[in-house]
Formats: sequence, C-alpha cells, structure tokens
Amino acid sequence: MALSENGPTVAVVGVTGAVGQEFLSVLDDRDFPYGKLKLLASKRSAGKHMTFQDRDYVVEELTDESFNGVDIALFSAGGSISKEFGPVAVDKGVIVVDNSSAFRMVDGVPLVIPEASVNPDAMAHIRLSNKKGALIANPNCSTIICLMAVTPLHRHAKVKRMVVSTYQAASGAGAAAMAELEQQTREVLEGKEPTCKIFNQQYAFNLFSHNSSVKENGYNEEELKLVKETRKIWDDDEVRVTATCVRVPVMRAHAESINLQFEKPVDEETARQILSSANGVTVIDDRDANSFPTPLKVSSTDDVAVGRIRRDLSQDGHHGLDIFVCGDQIRKGAALNAVQIAEKLW
Amino acid sequence: MALSENGPTVAVVGVTGAVGQEFLSVLDDRDFPYGKLKLLASKRSAGKHMTFQDRDYVVEELTDESFNGVDIALFSAGGSISKEFGPVAVDKGVIVVDNSSAFRMVDGVPLVIPEASVNPDAMAHIRLSNKKGALIANPNCSTIICLMAVTPLHRHAKVKRMVVSTYQAASGAGAAAMAELEQQTREVLEGKEPTCKIFNQQYAFNLFSHNSSVKENGYNEEELKLVKETRKIWDDDEVRVTATCVRVPVMRAHAESINLQFEKPVDEETARQILSSANGVTVIDDRDANSFPTPLKVSSTDDVAVGRIRRDLSQDGHHGLDIFVCGDQIRKGAALNAVQIAEKLW
Repeated sequence: MALSENGPTVAVVGVTGAVGQEFLSVLDDRDFPYGKLKLLASKRSAGKHMTFQDRDYVVEELTDESFNGVDIALFSAGGSISKEFGPVAVDKGVIVVDNSSAFRMVDGVPLVIPEASVNPDAMAHIRLSNKKGALIANPNCSTIICLMAVTPLHRHAKVKRMVVSTYQAASGAGAAAMAELEQQTREVLEGKEPTCKIFNQQYAFNLFSHNSSVKENGYNEEELKLVKETRKIWDDDEVRVTATCVRVPVMRAHAESINLQFEKPVDEETARQILSSANGVTVIDDRDANSFPTPLKVSSTDDVAVGRIRRDLSQDGHHGLDIFVCGDQIRKGAALNAVQIAEKLW
Repeated sequence: MALSENGPTVAVVGVTGAVGQEFLSVLDDRDFPYGKLKLLASKRSAGKHMTFQDRDYVVEELTDESFNGVDIALFSAGGSISKEFGPVAVDKGVIVVDNSSAFRMVDGVPLVIPEASVNPDAMAHIRLSNKKGALIANPNCSTIICLMAVTPLHRHAKVKRMVVSTYQAASGAGAAAMAELEQQTREVLEGKEPTCKIFNQQYAFNLFSHNSSVKENGYNEEELKLVKETRKIWDDDEVRVTATCVRVPVMRAHAESINLQFEKPVDEETARQILSSANGVTVIDDRDANSFPTPLKVSSTDDVAVGRIRRDLSQDGHHGLDIFVCGDQIRKGAALNAVQIAEKLW
C-alpha cells in the first residue's frame, strides 16, 4: 500500500470480516494511494491491534464521529450498518463504496462494475475533487461475476434473456460460514453429527438452495438480486433474467452456468474473441484437456474465468450461447470491485 | 429378496461395483421374485464370497457361458462389457437390462423410465413369457432424475425447450471416485496435497465441468446424453434441450436446476399438483422454512425430489417454470430404475 501525503483518508468499515480483511489485502496489492487509514468495526472488535505493512493499527469502534476527515469509506459490515452509517458518512462529505445490498436499488445510487466493458460511466459524476459526499453501491457477488463475462457479449449482440444457475461458495455467508463448512466436514469424516449454526442443515458433502429468504413469487433474495441488478447495471428494463441460486461446499469462489439468448447472432469464435479481450476476464476453455474454470483456479485471483463457451444447440442459428464462469467471491465479487470503484474517483 | 420356485434366474453383471451392490440391495428391498441368482464380475473379483440374505454366493467370472439358463441379466460393468456380453446374453434368450450407454441410442432398443408417467410402453413388447432375448437400456442417471420430474409436466403442457444445469455427485464415476473424494477431503483438511487418480484435479472443496470427453460442438458426452435421451424417451425429435454438467463434491445424489419453456400455459399450482401426484416423485417445496430438495435428503431413497417450483419471471404469462430436482444417482439414477424395468417383464 502506498502512503501518499496528498492521498485521501480511507476508512474500512467492517475490517474484521472476510471482505474487510480482503479490502486491506487488495488495497495493498494495488498500491492504492492513501494518506491515512482508519480501521472501523463494531464495539466488540474495537481495541484489536492489526499489523499492516509493518504499521500497527488499532481497530476503532464505528460511530458517527468515525467519518470526520475521511474521504473514502469502504463498507462491508452488513446492510443495517450501511443503512445507519452510510448516510452519516455521506453528510460528512465521504464517498461511500458500499458492499451491502442496502442502497443498490435506490434511484440515483450508481451500481457499478468499473471495468470499461461494464458500467464505469454510471459513477462518472462522482469525483474526489468535487469534495462532496456520495454513495456508490457494489453489486452482489453473483451479479458481478456473471456480468463481468456477460456484459461484453451483451454490448456486442444484446442479451434478450439469461438463465443462470449458481454454485455458490461458503464465503458469501462470511468467515463463520467458511469455518462451519470446514468444521462440519471434519465432523462428518469422523462419523460425528455436523454442527449447524450458520445454516440450518448439513453443508459438508451436500448442497442446498440459497439460504436467503424466499419471496411470494418463489424466488429467493439472491436470485432477485441477479434479476434486478442486471437491469440496473445495463440500464435495460427489457432484459429477461431468471436464476436459481444454490450453495455448494466450496470455500471462496462462485461458479455460474449461464444460458444466453441474444437479439443479434454471435458465433462461438466471436464470443471467445470478445471475452479474451475483455479486461478482468480470463478465458479457460481447453476442450481437449477438459480444462475449464473451477473455483480453485480462481480462488484469491482477480479475474473472472470463463469457459465452456459453445453455441446453444437448443436455439436457432447463432442466437444462443452457453458459458460457465467462476470468480473469487471475496475478491472480484466484493473487495476488489469496491477498491476498483475507489480507484476511479480521481 | 423372495426366492420363488418358478421365479426367473437373475444374473447381476458387475456385482462388485457401486451400482452392482445397489442392484442387490434394491432386489432385496423390493422382494423381487427370483428363482436363482448369479453374481458375475471380472476375473479379478471371481471367487469372492458375498453373503446375501444369509446365503453364501461365490462371484463367478463373466464368460459367454455365464448366461446359460439365465432369464434376466442386470448389467452395470461399463460400456465395453455390455457391448461384448450383452448380445451374447440376448442370443441365449436373456432379457438384458443394461445400465451402460452402449445401446441407449440404438434403434429398436427401448430406453425406459418405467413409471407410468414416463415411458413403460416402449418395452411393452418385451415379456418373460415370450422366452426371447432382448435388450432394454437404462437411461443415464442425469436423464432419469431430470425426466422423472419433467415428463409429467411435459405430458400436460408440452416442453418446447429445457435448459439444465447439473450438480453431479462422485458416485456417477463409481465407488473409487467416492473414495477419492473422501480421501482428498481428509488430505486437504490435513494440509496435504490431494491425491488425484480418478479425476485430473482436486475435487475436495471444488467443482468442475463433467469429466466426460468434450465433442467438437463444445458439449461433453454427459450433456449430449441429456439432449439425445430426452428425445428418445419422449419420442419427440422437436424438443430442444441444452445442458451444462458439473461435478460437485457430494457423494451419491445428483441435483439439477431446470428451466422449462412450455407450448401450453401451466401455472405453478397446477405444476405442483401434477408433481405431487406423480409416482416416484416427492415434492419438497416449503418456502417459509427454506426447505427444498438436497442431495442428502434423497440419498439412499427411491423418489426424485422436486422443489423451487415457480413461474419463470423471464417468460411471458405461464409458459415457463423453474424447478430444482435431486435424486439418488446410484438408486433411481441406476439400480432402482433397472430393477423396476425388470419388474415390468411379467
């Protein structure tokens, strides 16, 4: 991380969580030019020491006063913390990049995947030089990973309809869920009853429909995020999206099987070229070696991996494609995307 | 298992495999009325003793002579064994129920899911009383599990197009793959390098595109089975199917996320009623409790479980549904379906 005399003061809210820790790691990896750093968390974690780049930090309790003098705040402490403290920070002139779902669908709040191939323009009016507070929302992890791959294709041939089935990692439910998956797996291998605290059923060697609440229309919240956030990010109310979101016993990277129907034809080779040249996307698509994206291949890496690129046999001509994508849920699905947003604020 | 003086002589080919063992367990559970039982396997396993219902059996080496006097043979020893010995058995007057892919797409060989709601009629001409040899093919596990749920809906409203994403268990690759998943998981938890023998990459806490070979059109064999077998079982060359098949670190039950487009409208409540009354199908669809099918719920059980039944928001009116199904791969996906076929031979 680059300490810079004129750099902004950056606050990390929820620094003790899985995404909070990843914020620090990404800021460091990318030499983010900050002036001062504040580590904020709940009262329970306040007073903890964190060594970061040979410097000792004391985690401070998050209060209204925490945002005095802050320029950029990266929030990942859950929706209710964002709702309570996000507006406070904005009032104090802070640009808040919020990883929760609290403000994503609020009119006027940009929902951004900042790669040039997606929608950085949605936040073009928010700049540090304006010296004005603002909220920018980080999309949900499944949406980011999906749209990193699909948007470049959408820009080329316009997606009419998209059918997504997810294979989601434990990390999406936080560090405690990752620990639970590991503990349960040990217990099952030892012939013991698995301990179920975060989830209401066995996760080890099992999978289940996403644990978010199910709405009257039968979709769970995670699925509706994919539907609604895609429309907002593409600024396209016509695109039709359906999704089935499933948790699988994997630690920190999501996979998604995506079926696409396009308005204009797009053949397989063109799709492969478009994806190969998209920033933040890596094509892994070796049919002979049966080598395609997997959660392990992308874990702790920045790019979203795409493979299994093929013409959909169930559609006429070249109007359909099937693809399979994997992305690190904590990194591009959360912390990296937020830091990339912050990098665009100059 | 019911020993019956006039019952047929049943041979189990590949009795030492995961499905072979399940054949015995299913024959037992269902009191299948047999006269004599022959347990057949490769030379390597010949001479092994198996105690079954308090009776000692010696596994015999599979040879052409093995089928003398046999009435029904249940094959699950891989495609090449079926290709070599299936026709030999048929020539000797045996009715072969083959779990391999060897004969599934051969004209004149019925490919059967024997529930009344699917296609028992395809084998109506094959009867023990005919005293004539015949081949009947067991569909692939993913196809059986999918079509158990989808066919009753298809009969009602005609499926035009189906998009399937699978979450497939280790058992589909045999008992050794299940053992490898367990061993790898222990190794990873102990911080060791996982041993990869059956699969060319880490399976524990990971998932990957199905390991069957990938064809020129980019689909792997497992996916093409779903496409082709559905058409044959439904006797409908028009139905459009696409599939993405993925292995997940689960032991013995597959899950499938299925998106359906119908010719005629079918609302959610009608779909739920149709599925609730279909034989061999259990609806698990409690939205308030977030209780839906999982691999563990169906492991070692007979029924295919269906849930997440909902109108597809991405389609107009009531012409689309999303569903999520789980079925035991070894049982209904293989052994049970074959034994149910055998039960229809009288």
